Amino acid sequence: MGRWQPDAMGRLRAAAIDLFVERGYEQTTVADIAERAGLTARTFFRHFPDKREVLFQGAERLQQAMVDALLRAPTEATPIDAVAASLQAAAQSFGDIRSFARRRRDVIAATAELRERELIKLASLSAALAEALRSRGVVELDARLAAEAAVMVFRIAFERWLDGDDQRGYAAIALDLLHRLGGLAHTA
Amino acid sequence: MGRWQPDAMGRLRAAAIDLFVERGYEQTTVADIAERAGLTARTFFRHFPDKREVLFQGAERLQQAMVDALLRAPTEATPIDAVAASLQAAAQSFGDIRSFARRRRDVIAATAELRERELIKLASLSAALAEALRSRGVVELDARLAAEAAVMVFRIAFERWLDGDDQRGYAAIALDLLHRLGGLAHTA
Repeated sequence: MGRWQPDAMGRLRAAAIDLFVERGYEQTTVADIAERAGLTARTFFRHFPDKREVLFQGAERLQQAMVDALLRAPTEATPIDAVAASLQAAAQSFGDIRSFARRRRDVIAATAELRERELIKLASLSAALAEALRSRGVVELDARLAAEAAVMVFRIAFERWLDGDDQRGYAAIALDLLHRLGGLAHTA
Repeated sequence: MGRWQPDAMGRLRAAAIDLFVERGYEQTTVADIAERAGLTARTFFRHFPDKREVLFQGAERLQQAMVDALLRAPTEATPIDAVAASLQAAAQSFGDIRSFARRRRDVIAATAELRERELIKLASLSAALAEALRSRGVVELDARLAAEAAVMVFRIAFERWLDGDDQRGYAAIALDLLHRLGGLAHTA
């Protein structure tokens, strides 16, 4: 990344999602994406291993941010408090990606290979959060459950946030869901 | 189904899962299944629309049993109590299918089309449970959450039950998970 290519990665990402929506994911090549971004295929490959990863590269950073936040939660935090901290960390990455994320969702929904990749990423997130919870001393079964609950809330909150039916920010939606989940055993 | 074909459906199901494991799902035809079961393809199609549904036909009956149990729960039951009733109904279908279900899981894991079908069935179960909860007067967001939590617990309990690490019956595993989920906000 030289100074002569300001935000090459962002331009490639924007070009890719535009083309995936316009032409379809399978009909779009790396050469198409680079051309649309006014860059070369060589520059593309400096940022992404392949066209699929344009859609998934953010997932790894997000997972790391969520795991870090979970590990940094106070020692006395309950599993759900620790999960809440990880969801708040996720929210910080979601400031300005709603337009990208909506189109990304549509592209993924249209292609079986991408749906599968998305599920693998969510399973990886669940496994990473469970591992982080175990390292905090949470017993195996609770760690697994809390991690799966975290991913469930993460996913439902993300849908609601993208749909725009719920006007609150991502963090408020996710924390409300987490709170409601705890209350389901009590409310009629 | 005449008396001259005792348990044709069961024989077809057993033959199919044997062949899927031996040869692979994609390499197995309906003719192969019928032959192995000592029946005709015509008999096969009286019981199943295609070879894929040998693996998924039980899912519809299961969903109906779970929805019925949820609707029959006492009016004063909390969403989680109602979900518990539906998980207990699921357990009643799982008495003697563990050997079939283990092989079914391996066959599904090996084929993308089947993994996708399995996820669609789980999404359908979640939607049906949410609808049943709404019909009980549970507000939209809680109905969605409780239904997703039900499917999450259903799935994790099923894995544990199939793995055999947990020696308890399916109902005991599932109800323990549901109880632990409610407790995650409290235990350290």
